[in-house]
Amino acid sequence: MKNILGNYLTVTLFGESHGPCVGATLDGIAPGIRIDTEYLKREMDHRRASGELATSRKEADEVQFVSGVKDGYTEGTPLTVLIMNQNVRSSDYDSVAHLARPSHADYTAEMKYLGYQDVRGGGHFSGRLTAPLVALGAIVKQALEEKGVYIGTHVASVADITDDALPKDNIKEVIEMLNGKDFALLNDAKKEDISKAILDAKAEGDSLGGVLETVVCGLPAGIGEPYFDSLESTLSHGLFSIGGVKGVEFGDGFALTKMKGSEANDPLCMEDGKVVTESNHAGGINGGISNGMPIVFRTAIKPTSSIGKVQKTVDYKTMEEAELQLEGRHDPCIVLRARAMVDAVTALVIADALCARYGYLYLRSEK
Amino acid sequence: MKNILGNYLTVTLFGESHGPCVGATLDGIAPGIRIDTEYLKREMDHRRASGELATSRKEADEVQFVSGVKDGYTEGTPLTVLIMNQNVRSSDYDSVAHLARPSHADYTAEMKYLGYQDVRGGGHFSGRLTAPLVALGAIVKQALEEKGVYIGTHVASVADITDDALPKDNIKEVIEMLNGKDFALLNDAKKEDISKAILDAKAEGDSLGGVLETVVCGLPAGIGEPYFDSLESTLSHGLFSIGGVKGVEFGDGFALTKMKGSEANDPLCMEDGKVVTESNHAGGINGGISNGMPIVFRTAIKPTSSIGKVQKTVDYKTMEEAELQLEGRHDPCIVLRARAMVDAVTALVIADALCARYGYLYLRSEK
Amino acid sequence: MKNILGNYLTVTLFGESHGPCVGATLDGIAPGIRIDTEYLKREMDHRRASGELATSRKEADEVQFVSGVKDGYTEGTPLTVLIMNQNVRSSDYDSVAHLARPSHADYTAEMKYLGYQDVRGGGHFSGRLTAPLVALGAIVKQALEEKGVYIGTHVASVADITDDALPKDNIKEVIEMLNGKDFALLNDAKKEDISKAILDAKAEGDSLGGVLETVVCGLPAGIGEPYFDSLESTLSHGLFSIGGVKGVEFGDGFALTKMKGSEANDPLCMEDGKVVTESNHAGGINGGISNGMPIVFRTAIKPTSSIGKVQKTVDYKTMEEAELQLEGRHDPCIVLRARAMVDAVTALVIADALCARYGYLYLRSEK
Amino acid sequence: MKNILGNYLTVTLFGESHGPCVGATLDGIAPGIRIDTEYLKREMDHRRASGELATSRKEADEVQFVSGVKDGYTEGTPLTVLIMNQNVRSSDYDSVAHLARPSHADYTAEMKYLGYQDVRGGGHFSGRLTAPLVALGAIVKQALEEKGVYIGTHVASVADITDDALPKDNIKEVIEMLNGKDFALLNDAKKEDISKAILDAKAEGDSLGGVLETVVCGLPAGIGEPYFDSLESTLSHGLFSIGGVKGVEFGDGFALTKMKGSEANDPLCMEDGKVVTESNHAGGINGGISNGMPIVFRTAIKPTSSIGKVQKTVDYKTMEEAELQLEGRHDPCIVLRARAMVDAVTALVIADALCARYGYLYLRSEK
Repeated sequence: MKNILGNYLTVTLFGESHGPCVGATLDGIAPGIRIDTEYLKREMDHRRASGELATSRKEADEVQFVSGVKDGYTEGTPLTVLIMNQNVRSSDYDSVAHLARPSHADYTAEMKYLGYQDVRGGGHFSGRLTAPLVALGAIVKQALEEKGVYIGTHVASVADITDDALPKDNIKEVIEMLNGKDFALLNDAKKEDISKAILDAKAEGDSLGGVLETVVCGLPAGIGEPYFDSLESTLSHGLFSIGGVKGVEFGDGFALTKMKGSEANDPLCMEDGKVVTESNHAGGINGGISNGMPIVFRTAIKPTSSIGKVQKTVDYKTMEEAELQLEGRHDPCIVLRARAMVDAVTALVIADALCARYGYLYLRSEK
Repeated sequence: MKNILGNYLTVTLFGESHGPCVGATLDGIAPGIRIDTEYLKREMDHRRASGELATSRKEADEVQFVSGVKDGYTEGTPLTVLIMNQNVRSSDYDSVAHLARPSHADYTAEMKYLGYQDVRGGGHFSGRLTAPLVALGAIVKQALEEKGVYIGTHVASVADITDDALPKDNIKEVIEMLNGKDFALLNDAKKEDISKAILDAKAEGDSLGGVLETVVCGLPAGIGEPYFDSLESTLSHGLFSIGGVKGVEFGDGFALTKMKGSEANDPLCMEDGKVVTESNHAGGINGGISNGMPIVFRTAIKPTSSIGKVQKTVDYKTMEEAELQLEGRHDPCIVLRARAMVDAVTALVIADALCARYGYLYLRSEK
Repeated sequence: MKNILGNYLTVTLFGESHGPCVGATLDGIAPGIRIDTEYLKREMDHRRASGELATSRKEADEVQFVSGVKDGYTEGTPLTVLIMNQNVRSSDYDSVAHLARPSHADYTAEMKYLGYQDVRGGGHFSGRLTAPLVALGAIVKQALEEKGVYIGTHVASVADITDDALPKDNIKEVIEMLNGKDFALLNDAKKEDISKAILDAKAEGDSLGGVLETVVCGLPAGIGEPYFDSLESTLSHGLFSIGGVKGVEFGDGFALTKMKGSEANDPLCMEDGKVVTESNHAGGINGGISNGMPIVFRTAIKPTSSIGKVQKTVDYKTMEEAELQLEGRHDPCIVLRARAMVDAVTALVIADALCARYGYLYLRSEK
Repeated sequence: MKNILGNYLTVTLFGESHGPCVGATLDGIAPGIRIDTEYLKREMDHRRASGELATSRKEADEVQFVSGVKDGYTEGTPLTVLIMNQNVRSSDYDSVAHLARPSHADYTAEMKYLGYQDVRGGGHFSGRLTAPLVALGAIVKQALEEKGVYIGTHVASVADITDDALPKDNIKEVIEMLNGKDFALLNDAKKEDISKAILDAKAEGDSLGGVLETVVCGLPAGIGEPYFDSLESTLSHGLFSIGGVKGVEFGDGFALTKMKGSEANDPLCMEDGKVVTESNHAGGINGGISNGMPIVFRTAIKPTSSIGKVQKTVDYKTMEEAELQLEGRHDPCIVLRARAMVDAVTALVIADALCARYGYLYLRSEK
């Protein structure tokens, strides 16, 4: 498959930045899931431009359900959302039509689509396409909560400014606290430093990256597959489909490579009659399958490629070297907003694995 | 899909550590690929136990082609390899039958398979399953070389001992040099330190992890997909299916999160009439699609979970806490051998993306 | 997958009869296919209500391209079409909301979707969803013609009135002739009898079925797969997704069961230096793979389930028996229109098989 | 996908007629299914050559489980069966190596595999590959019976000799009666005529075809999907993967095209508090989804292509016309044996649809 995420619960994306709309179709979703519009709005707001820290492009991002929803509940048929594109200023892009923006998909899209792709605003590669993805993810994330599975993400770091570490206990409360925040930090005192760093970068016409840390609690043990559909495989597959993601690690990830087995292993013990592990270096996954502990992973997001500084590049039509200075609206740091995409992808992938075990009707709301 | 890697060129694994054999089926492989048995043997040797640094379990690992190969060439029909299991000492495992080995799949397999799984030697979760995977990957890796696409991996680090950095130039020669080595280092002087560290860990009944760095050269620009089948998505999907892998990063990966956009972006320029980038922080992938530069990624491999030290665990039948001391043959560090699995998965995923663009016959040998 | 047709070139459908729109997404389509709006309109017209012989529901069925098309050419990115729903008279359906229309999907949808489905106009099961399918099929059918592959369908029979048999020669000309007709008959003299039979049925509040015969010429030998993706498997998979289709046979199909092998076999011979078969009882497919002869198959379409006569049924909410007399606009015979759906599905499935062999770029227009 | 049947419960086939073995892998099968070896043997015997009516090639067809089975129960991991090839007389085929057997896959395989395919005994296209398919299907068919879903097939006709029609009632008993017979007839009195017709054809060096009628009872309403994974789509997909199948019809199939809607519709009524239909012209499927009535379909099987008579053909290496008279062991009529393949495919497809709704664990045995 090409443009499809999931085996049982599948998502297909479509649209372009400067086309009439962006959209996505969710297939395999159970009937009878009540759509909480406040919940949906909150997740969409997490993704949207948040004031001076983000792009100045403003979009209402109103989610239109054109299929699969009736009277506020999923029907069980393909669920398609559309989000109209507004406030499009193509002129911002005309000047750079054939100058490949460094580390953007301009040149690779030209090589793949042979010149037929829409280059305005990045066309199909625009971050705009994550809007319908977040909308679908929100519906599934909310449905998972009814099943006791909670997903949350915090900004573990921006540049070299780090948030606090995840606590070991009360994960559900921590997740709900994070989901209630626009600025997803465990330690709110870091907000000022991070904001300043982003604004400084913006003032320089530059950008910053960071790391998002995600935790999933309430996932029962035994979910996932060995080998090719390990939870790490399917989660990373989804996470790397988000623009700007260049690294994913589970549990202690790369840090595990410096530990000894005796340090890295998670001893098992009994707690309230339940098998748990004393530590969670593995991030809740052994052999590709959930062990009942919180799923923990970290996603590396590169600094935004669109910067205001003059850059060397190539005109891919004339094949001549050139200089490029981007006009228009750019996001100095997408890390804060990316938490919404990461949560959406996580919800979709986890729900897919749950449907594999429990079937198509698993996600429906209890009456 | 569950046990399937790839969309066009697909792999299915089967078998268990202590069953009659392990095997795999490769479907969608072009007819007319000449199988170089020396090349295959070399890749299999890269995966095999290498003396004192690895497990003392010895296997001939002779690859039997039971389908899809005739007169030394692929037929184009499903290609199935079997590798018989030998030298099986189940008694090593009887004593620990229901004591979950910490950070192994014992407990998660019990939760998924409800007690019906074969626990001997890890059963289906055994590293033995990577033998047929490496065999299939070797056939594809060799076929890719005929198309000018070369794949190689070096041991970037074991514990805190690091190999040299990848050179910027002559990547093809570097890859061929690495593929010619049993101990995949750019700087052979590191071999002694790494060997000593592994043997020291072994002596302590402990284990080590490390990082593998892989480079692919010769891949044309325009290969891959936006979003859900980005090269990062499909490569990481395959890489995380290898036991012990807990992190994957492309290009500068997590280090990118500490750079500014102006540092992280790769300026484009012309070289010999070809578009290239001056740096390669992106690891040769923009927007999920190859840009013609070498594909570079790093794979984090945790220290082997099987250690000789006494560990706390749980008997998952009696649900009682217990102590466990593993007998038997364990690998103090799988990093050296894992390069073969990483190369195999990389070859399969890259070939799959090439077949998507160029079709089923692309990989066949030129006459 | 659930709502997806194809492996390489994939289609996803969405929408409901009385929702805002119906639509479909085509993924894996090559860039650079020029969209011939006249060709598209013609195929859409073949599907649309044609006067007194069909439903009185009138729809403009204007195809809106909201993704994947720029300046009249495919971009190579996901291609999404929307067709707005107009002229909706839900009141026609209110009276029968919970009375299952016999041989419709009302009851089965209730069983699958547990009461959450949209029942108005059949909801997601409405024939309306074939409009975007025909639109996508038309784009692919036209692209196939540029590659020398032509697809056409005639009304082999309506009730017991039969059209002439397909000629053996000049298939391409025959196909172009059929594609130029609104009433797809080889023998136009049959039009009057068929029209009268349909109008008589309509007058009685009844409906008729029939058989469509499709021929594909220009498909090279060697396309398809053994076993699970045989051309018969993939074509029938697509054809049976069209509402009302209850039978599919290739070549002489069921008639072959009464022949002896010596009669049913197609002797091979040389013609103009090309291998051909003297007869084509196999319908151009041996072992699931095309043999270079025309692909021929027949599709059985049941009489429309919506009839004006009083019928016995059940109220699936009260579980009481009831009588039902349908109001509203019903099609006394969908056979004439179904040729457009059959052509669309055939184009999509054949193109998928060609892309498997020749790659993603195969369908693009030559400049 | 190419060589894969199913979405959730998937089958992959491999092997060649004259290779070491044929085999298949079943993935997604629940753990804890007790394998009834008598049941398995019976299904394998249904497929095997039965005396003078079939090929004289004798195979033990012993099913070896090399993965996924422990202590007589499925483990839940990939289940692979191997069946060794014995009694191979390649010499029978040497003489015809490059003479395409009319209506066989010889020529199409040459076009697809470019001369690299194994032509001995049809290679990968051999009916031998249905042996592992039947073995896997038997395991699933037996598991379905524990869930109350029964599958049976009778020989509806051979040439122009017809069996009795399926009774309307006691379907389960009828199915069990058929499954207990080697010669699957409702009316045993037809056995003599059919046997004589087959032996007469054999004596003439000719062959016969026929129609199989399959019935599935106990399938709950609500199973299947609209459009692309309708039960008709997935069942026909699997059925047409069986060699020699050239037609599939559901319910009254092609006969429906001559009925009026008022005759073809199945009125709903209540029976013992359950919704049923008075007739079953639709074969238990409306809108692609089961309605709770028996699933009924008919499969057209052409006369065996291998006949002893002299036939015109082409040498696909020299491209010269030639005459061919086949030596060796040929089956004058595969219809009797094909019922085993049809049952196997039906079980796999129906189970796949049930797993979609009820999840991966659905098929496990109750303790």
